[in-house]
Amino acid sequence: MRFDHAGIATEDAAELTALFGDLCGFEVAHEETFDGMRVVFLDVGGGYLELLEPTEGGTIARYLDENGPGIHHLAFETADVAAALATARELEIGLVDEEPRPGAWGHDVAFLHPADTGGVLIEFVEH
Amino acid sequence: MRFDHAGIATEDAAELTALFGDLCGFEVAHEETFDGMRVVFLDVGGGYLELLEPTEGGTIARYLDENGPGIHHLAFETADVAAALATARELEIGLVDEEPRPGAWGHDVAFLHPADTGGVLIEFVEH
Repeated sequence: MRFDHAGIATEDAAELTALFGDLCGFEVAHEETFDGMRVVFLDVGGGYLELLEPTEGGTIARYLDENGPGIHHLAFETADVAAALATARELEIGLVDEEPRPGAWGHDVAFLHPADTGGVLIEFVEH
Repeated sequence: MRFDHAGIATEDAAELTALFGDLCGFEVAHEETFDGMRVVFLDVGGGYLELLEPTEGGTIARYLDENGPGIHHLAFETADVAAALATARELEIGLVDEEPRPGAWGHDVAFLHPADTGGVLIEFVEH
């Protein structure tokens, strides 16, 4: 498994894209509207920042209401999300997604319960 | 500039090291006691997780009191932290550190004010 991306909840993905471009030189690798969100992936060299801007209600809109903008989750790439979920089950880590589901950029993804992983919301990603 | 690490505030770096090892196969790349913290870097392939466990009062201890454990910051590697800070100044981004200072693992580091960077606490790191 290896680092894939850090997910960032934002109310303005375009503004944050410009800021990371000006400050760090990061460029857009992919963008789309997915599951009620504007999603922008910035290439950070061997991984991505995933900017998540809600375009309607949903998980990220609620997160922003409760916490404000900021780092939302960390995603790790694996060749087999189902096998990674099986390992999590063996470790008695609670699962947000019991099975892999379609995520942004055509990937299969699954999230774990942060209460069981040191307060870190972890996503598994299969490209 | 490129992704260097995600910093994670924790009350038990040893437990979290074991969990990331069992769940993701990440191994310890470096550990030390630095600036009143137990600091453990886990190799995540092209970058690191930096686990930060306070051993005395300080920034991370206060963060844990206020927010509980979780993702604390994102760090980007640059060949010149002073130049990166100059760029941040030009963009009118507030600086936590006006000059590079010694960080963990013998690196030079500087932090920016998250209020000016989409709620994301950004660290520049020069190896």
